[in-house]
Formats: sequence, structure tokens, C-alpha cells
Amino acid sequence: MAERVTICEVAPRDGLQIARGRMPTAVKSRWIAAMAAAGLPQIEVGSFVSPKLIPQMADTGEIVRAAVLLPGVTIVALAPNLRGAEAAMAAGAQRISVPISVTMGHSRANLNRTPAEQTAEIGRMVAFLRGQTRRVELEVALSTAFGCSFDGVVAVDEVVRVAEGVAAAGADAISLADTVGYGHPADIRAKVRAVRAAIGPVMQGLHLHDTMGLGLANALAGLEEGVRKFDSALAGLGGCPFAPGASGNIVTEDLVFLLESQGFATGVDLAKLIAARAILTEGLPDEVLHGQVPRAGIPKTFRPAA
Amino acid sequence: MAERVTICEVAPRDGLQIARGRMPTAVKSRWIAAMAAAGLPQIEVGSFVSPKLIPQMADTGEIVRAAVLLPGVTIVALAPNLRGAEAAMAAGAQRISVPISVTMGHSRANLNRTPAEQTAEIGRMVAFLRGQTRRVELEVALSTAFGCSFDGVVAVDEVVRVAEGVAAAGADAISLADTVGYGHPADIRAKVRAVRAAIGPVMQGLHLHDTMGLGLANALAGLEEGVRKFDSALAGLGGCPFAPGASGNIVTEDLVFLLESQGFATGVDLAKLIAARAILTEGLPDEVLHGQVPRAGIPKTFRPAA
Repeated sequence: MAERVTICEVAPRDGLQIARGRMPTAVKSRWIAAMAAAGLPQIEVGSFVSPKLIPQMADTGEIVRAAVLLPGVTIVALAPNLRGAEAAMAAGAQRISVPISVTMGHSRANLNRTPAEQTAEIGRMVAFLRGQTRRVELEVALSTAFGCSFDGVVAVDEVVRVAEGVAAAGADAISLADTVGYGHPADIRAKVRAVRAAIGPVMQGLHLHDTMGLGLANALAGLEEGVRKFDSALAGLGGCPFAPGASGNIVTEDLVFLLESQGFATGVDLAKLIAARAILTEGLPDEVLHGQVPRAGIPKTFRPAA
Repeated sequence: MAERVTICEVAPRDGLQIARGRMPTAVKSRWIAAMAAAGLPQIEVGSFVSPKLIPQMADTGEIVRAAVLLPGVTIVALAPNLRGAEAAMAAGAQRISVPISVTMGHSRANLNRTPAEQTAEIGRMVAFLRGQTRRVELEVALSTAFGCSFDGVVAVDEVVRVAEGVAAAGADAISLADTVGYGHPADIRAKVRAVRAAIGPVMQGLHLHDTMGLGLANALAGLEEGVRKFDSALAGLGGCPFAPGASGNIVTEDLVFLLESQGFATGVDLAKLIAARAILTEGLPDEVLHGQVPRAGIPKTFRPAA
């Protein structure tokens, strides 16, 4: 049996939140269902934030309520604070992701809060979730862990310090996010090792962007360091509204090709996944779709791992 | 002192040979000079093949004669056979690269010759070069080493067998080429190791394409296996006329960013290299330029290795 790697598909949240257009709710639900049917184990379908701030996410409650009916997939919702977590629970989200910035510059721009204040908020979210009868895990993504367009280089110690605070606050899982795409393999390795040494198996995932073309090289470095959980986006959608110059997330289609080629089972049917791009284009006709495997076609030499 | 990695820039040969347009000779010479001034240690400037087959390479003699006057750069010319090697020597080329296909399908399409026939031809080229007073090294690139659009999967043993034949014929260096871009990191590692075990330090380089988005992940895998020589193309130009669906070479600008970030000195000034894209566009206005670092801009966290 091939070892398993879990992909969390984030295009419906990380991709759509900065798209120029707005995908109709019915198309979005159909798109999420198609990606779930392709075998993606986790899909982050939206964000419980103020619709005044991010109007593309205004239908997140409705989207979550529909998506949790899909079989075999864990529906994740982003919540930046306790209020968002309450809304996510009310809608039936099966996992909640929370951002925290390692750097002050990004933290103020993205959350209007210091990292210490967000750590305290995460503590309140954990307390709230532990008081529920339905068990929902809280995963915290450490933004700007590999560099910041505001604050520049991010030291290993800074990442470890924030990770320790978040772990102490009770997060179930932590992922390191290369929000602006400045990360490179040696930096990925160093920080994954240091955070794991500090907090153990709560260190789980990587959220990578392909800003400098190193996205999949960074994923490979993480994989070799034992990371078994990756965020990615269909067609490489996404970026960060507060990270000037940042381009999209790593492309799910190409990531599946990489992981399966390396002998790791993702559970994803690559051809079905590629077919789901058509619904994305239907819902957002002006969006540029990235991805090399979809463009070149699955090579005849490809053998899935499982 | 940072360890050195040698990049051979192949866009003037591998890129221009399949470009729709034809770059004027004077612009091509200026473009090559700009890339040399950016610090690239090797530039493959053209191909001594029949101008009836590849008209874009008809000015290779003139290009080589001008380029060898540039300081601090080794000027490489491709020669598919003895006749090409004689022309390359007459023009003053400082290094000669020769293709051989590992697979029969690609060999017949690209060279109209079997791998065994090409190995014999390489022997004749070696004998010719050893008879010259000016010492010029012969580097042989093993095409389709990581898969073939005609013949599918390529076994490690097939690559080793061709490499052994070429080494026995007297090649100074061998590189493994992912001509159609089907390669993935585990395959890169396995074949680099096996060929090195068979022929020792004559195994030197990797020539990678980014067809499936794994180009730089494959470069990282090669780097970690001890490879210190990579081909790449400015703006990711290139492909293979006999490899349907193949897209461009790995992008030199992004490769430099990767290598320098990992602590390896390339000798390349990244800003100057990016500036050389303007001359490419001047000479071939319709060509699509790839590359993430040029698009996003060199990040403020970047520190060259040397």
C-alpha cells in the first residue's frame, strides 16, 4: 500500500477571494461537488469574514451547508476569529482553518491585529470548539512563514515562537504558509524541522505559492522532510490581497502528478480533476487557468501510486 | 566559498530552433553578448545542421565566430554528426554537444538513425576532435532518458546501456535529457545514480523541461544527487519538434534563483539576466516569455550565494 498524502483544495476560498469576478453560488457548489467526486479529501470552500471586506465569500454559509452533504470529503471553512468560528459551526463546517501572521506587517494588513492578539483569539476559538458536542478540528496556518513582502526575511526563531504560542493555545494542527511565495527548499526544510522539533506532530501542513516558480520544488522538499499535508488550488488560482506581487497557489493538478509519481497516494483521479476546470471557467470566464499537466495532457508514462 | 554550479544557457539553440519567427543574426549576437555579460558560464549558441531542416540555425557559423570573442564564457555548438563537428571546429566553437536518443522512436524521428549508429558516429567525432591541436570537449546529451512520447516508459537499464556505449566511445561528458518532460524527481534520482555508478564522473549534467510543471523540482532532485551542471533557457524557450506536447526548457532566471537560494554560486547576475529578455523580445516579438521571478520581481529576501 502506498503511503497517503492529504491535499486540501483551497481554490474556492483562496482563489475566489481575490478573483476579479464573482462565481455564482450554484456554479460554485457544482464545482466543489466535481472536485469532491474527483477524490480530493479536503476542500476549503469559503471564508466566514465580513461580506463587506470580501464580497466573493458572502455565500460561504450556503456553500458549506450544501458541501457537507457530499460523501467522502472533509469540508473546511476559514474563520479569522471567534465570530467566524461560530458561523462556521452553525453552517456545519467539518474543519476550521485560521490564519495568523508570523510578521507584524502582514498581521496588521491582513488581520488588523498583532500575532499575540491573534494567538489569544485562537485560544478563545479552541475553548468555543471544545464546548461543542460536534468535534471539529482547528488548523492554524502561519502566514508569511517564509518571508514577507512588508517585513522581508523571516527568521526560523520567529516562526517557532508563533507556532509554540498557537500550539499552546490548543490548535489541533499547524501549517506553514508561504503567503508571498518567497520560500525556497532549504528554508522549507529548516522551518519544517525546527517547528516539528518544537511542537511535534501538531506541525502538519504546507501552504505553498508558486510566485518564483519554486512551488513544486518546495513541495518536494517538504515531502522529503515528512510533510504529508499540502494545500493547493485547482488551476493555481489565488494569491494574497495584502501581498503585492504574489501569484497563485501551487497547482493541484501538477501537485497530484508529483505526489503520485513519487509513490504517494492522494486518492485523486487526475483526469476527473482536470475535467473540473471546465466548471471553473463556466463560473469565472475571465480567470487565467494555470497548470502544466492540464495543458500538456497526462503523459502516457504516468502510473498512479495506489 | 559557495560551491559552484554551471548553467549552460540553451535558448539560442534549443529555443530558437522551434520558434515560429526567425531572430535576425545581429540581434541574436547582441542577445548572446548580453547573457554572457550577465555571467552565464556556457551558452549553446546554435546548431550545425542542414539549414533546410532547421532554417533558424542557418547563421550558426557566423554566430559562433562572433560569440567566441566574448570574454569569460564558453561557446557551445550542437553538432548531430561528424560533418557538424567539423563545421563547429572550423567556426571556433569551444565545446560541442551531440544528441543521442535512448529510445528508438525518438532516435529515428530526430536523427534518422538508431542509437547504435549514433554511438558509432560519436566515436568518429571523438577521433576527429582528438586529432585537432585545439582541445574541444564533446558533451553527449541522452535524449528521452526520462520517457518518450513515442516509446513511453524508459527503463533505468536502457539509459545505462546507452550511457556506457557513449562513454566507451570517448565522450568527455554525458548529460541526461528529459526531452519531453515526463521526468519526476524519483526517476531523476534513480537514473543519475545508476549512470554515475556505471560511468563515474563522465556523468555530469541534466537537461530538463517543464512540461508537467516539475522542472525545478527535478532540478532540485538532481542537485541533491550531486549534479552540478544544468541546461536551461532564458524565458523557458524551447521544446522539441519531434516531441508532441512538449513545452519549454526550465527557465534560467528561476533556476538561478533556486540555485543561489540553496547556497550554490552560478556566477550569474540575476537582474542583468532578466534585462536580457528585452533583446529576446526585440528579436522575436511574438514569442511568449515564461518565468516566474521575472514576472514577480526578485524578492527582497533574495541573497545570492557567492
